[in-house]
Amino acid sequence: MKVGLADTTFSKFDYAPVVMKVLNASKPKVYVQRYTVPGIKDLPVACKKLFKNGCDIVIACGMVGRAPIDKQCSHEASLGMQMVQISEAKHILEVFVHSDEAKDDKELAKICEDRAKKHAQNALMLLFDQKEMQKRAGTGRRQGRPDAGKLKVD
Amino acid sequence: MKVGLADTTFSKFDYAPVVMKVLNASKPKVYVQRYTVPGIKDLPVACKKLFKNGCDIVIACGMVGRAPIDKQCSHEASLGMQMVQISEAKHILEVFVHSDEAKDDKELAKICEDRAKKHAQNALMLLFDQKEMQKRAGTGRRQGRPDAGKLKVD
Amino acid sequence: MKVGLADTTFSKFDYAPVVMKVLNASKPKVYVQRYTVPGIKDLPVACKKLFKNGCDIVIACGMVGRAPIDKQCSHEASLGMQMVQISEAKHILEVFVHSDEAKDDKELAKICEDRAKKHAQNALMLLFDQKEMQKRAGTGRRQGRPDAGKLKVD
Amino acid sequence: MKVGLADTTFSKFDYAPVVMKVLNASKPKVYVQRYTVPGIKDLPVACKKLFKNGCDIVIACGMVGRAPIDKQCSHEASLGMQMVQISEAKHILEVFVHSDEAKDDKELAKICEDRAKKHAQNALMLLFDQKEMQKRAGTGRRQGRPDAGKLKVD
Amino acid sequence: MKVGLADTTFSKFDYAPVVMKVLNASKPKVYVQRYTVPGIKDLPVACKKLFKNGCDIVIACGMVGRAPIDKQCSHEASLGMQMVQISEAKHILEVFVHSDEAKDDKELAKICEDRAKKHAQNALMLLFDQKEMQKRAGTGRRQGRPDAGKLKVD
Repeated sequence: MKVGLADTTFSKFDYAPVVMKVLNASKPKVYVQRYTVPGIKDLPVACKKLFKNGCDIVIACGMVGRAPIDKQCSHEASLGMQMVQISEAKHILEVFVHSDEAKDDKELAKICEDRAKKHAQNALMLLFDQKEMQKRAGTGRRQGRPDAGKLKVD
Repeated sequence: MKVGLADTTFSKFDYAPVVMKVLNASKPKVYVQRYTVPGIKDLPVACKKLFKNGCDIVIACGMVGRAPIDKQCSHEASLGMQMVQISEAKHILEVFVHSDEAKDDKELAKICEDRAKKHAQNALMLLFDQKEMQKRAGTGRRQGRPDAGKLKVD
Repeated sequence: MKVGLADTTFSKFDYAPVVMKVLNASKPKVYVQRYTVPGIKDLPVACKKLFKNGCDIVIACGMVGRAPIDKQCSHEASLGMQMVQISEAKHILEVFVHSDEAKDDKELAKICEDRAKKHAQNALMLLFDQKEMQKRAGTGRRQGRPDAGKLKVD
Repeated sequence: MKVGLADTTFSKFDYAPVVMKVLNASKPKVYVQRYTVPGIKDLPVACKKLFKNGCDIVIACGMVGRAPIDKQCSHEASLGMQMVQISEAKHILEVFVHSDEAKDDKELAKICEDRAKKHAQNALMLLFDQKEMQKRAGTGRRQGRPDAGKLKVD
Repeated sequence: MKVGLADTTFSKFDYAPVVMKVLNASKPKVYVQRYTVPGIKDLPVACKKLFKNGCDIVIACGMVGRAPIDKQCSHEASLGMQMVQISEAKHILEVFVHSDEAKDDKELAKICEDRAKKHAQNALMLLFDQKEMQKRAGTGRRQGRPDAGKLKVD
């Protein structure tokens, strides 16, 4: 299996080492192809290119700024991601972190790291372990923050 | 007939048992294929995969968080659903519950259960009973809450 | 010519009799195929199915709720309608009534009836009488309310 | 060359005479095909039909109402226009006038006339004179109002 | 390699000389094809045409006005860009400057120039130097303003 890793020069966090650590530990082994582009709006076509190069799944990492226009850009990027995934019938796991998710750089970096790590694990689980994925259905899993857990109904 | 069931690990409610109960009671019998993904933005391509595996209709279950970014994500997921449905000319019944629809977890769980049950019934009705569906046209049916009924014009 | 009629069980108004009355009076005669689905987001694929069944034009009738999420749903449905129309190069006349267009149920029913009637007439005019359609260009026609007329420039 | 002219019965201004005047004066001569539809959301498929009938470019004229739902409709129409243009690799020049662009009908009519005239000229320039178009690049041209000119940097 | 340059007559800044200066200095040499259109909503199909003419990448330059409708137009244009890029599996580097990014014309011109220059460099780097691009991943690069740098986590 071949996993694509797309990332950006815009991001203030370097996701690649975090993602690579998870992917390198994968059993069965996966081959990784990386492709870097300027910003999040360049990611959908980056993913398309990675799929054309034989990737079975792509992890797309980006950072979103604080201005309203940045939100608009992330919306456009995410819609592009939908188009690519549907045209290829293959998953893109979107590791997008919004700058306003944290109060300072330190907290933001932690969110980036946690989200990247967990989505790299999700990518492997989608490729190799649908049984485990189904066990986790409806359990309130989160990437970038602690799991939310199930609804408390008792 | 084969019914797809797509759900997420993000959701705090496990829709599968509710949907399966309805589908298992179906006459004529239907075969069910389930596929679990991390979050709602992974659902459109999950549905695409289920259609490629021969499903005639898909029930896609997800939960939407309270933040503005969560609303944006649900919008992107729903647009992806439109693209998949149109490219396949097959229905996806969207069981999305928004966290802000209820005042507490208990009420939210009830909405989830009711919406999942009624949309599973709708899926079967779309497959097997267009006559009954037409009888219900314009009668203010709701999923997740009580039916609204017809406009009061007298 | 074959006209599709798509409607929903969510709607609190039953558009079908209004539309059928207009279509049944058509000269030349048209064949009508009806297809009912749960809600407005199910309408685009319903239209796609009607086109696949040979319809030359579709009238899609739905009602939109009052909440912000309902507006989002109508936007998603309308974008789906654009995709279907463009992929088929055939018209869908959208008879969507928003619950907040009227102050009470009685007024809302009148809007529903007027919009459905006039768009059924528009469907026939698009099929059979482009000359009349062109005569009306720029004359401020409205469906669901009285015509607005031309700009007053004198 | 064949130019399509798509317009609506919803509009309170009749764009066709303004556009035709420009097109009829074209050298080299162009053939014009007109197609009228009810409203702006019917324009994208109208353009698609005009392209299928051999048009090399289309001028699409519509008016947008003042309510928030009207803005949403214009957004959906414009996205449909993007889809059509891209699928055909041909231009649609969008002559949309928003009712809230002017304080009264008289001013609105002037905007309609100016925008239609200048976009008809743009259509011809795109067909026949890319050199002139490039000369105008970055010069702040406007349709519907006076040109804005270049940034003042001295 | 062939680079497309698409720009508009609407823009108050002429991006072409800035972009050409970078492209002309490229080693290896690139061939450039320019295409000018009226406004940003005409850019996606302009890019489509440039790709059909053999371009390997396109730099699309536009300016966005200050009104809410201008933001909507830029959103529509950017979504069109996504569609074109994905259908071609080739990059479009979007050099869009929003009029409200600066307090006066002089500052706006500087943003235009810097963004155009750096995205022209990015285009060449995407074509010829993925290794350098990957070195820059996660380093907070900006176009139109100074680089933001990495998150400060110590």
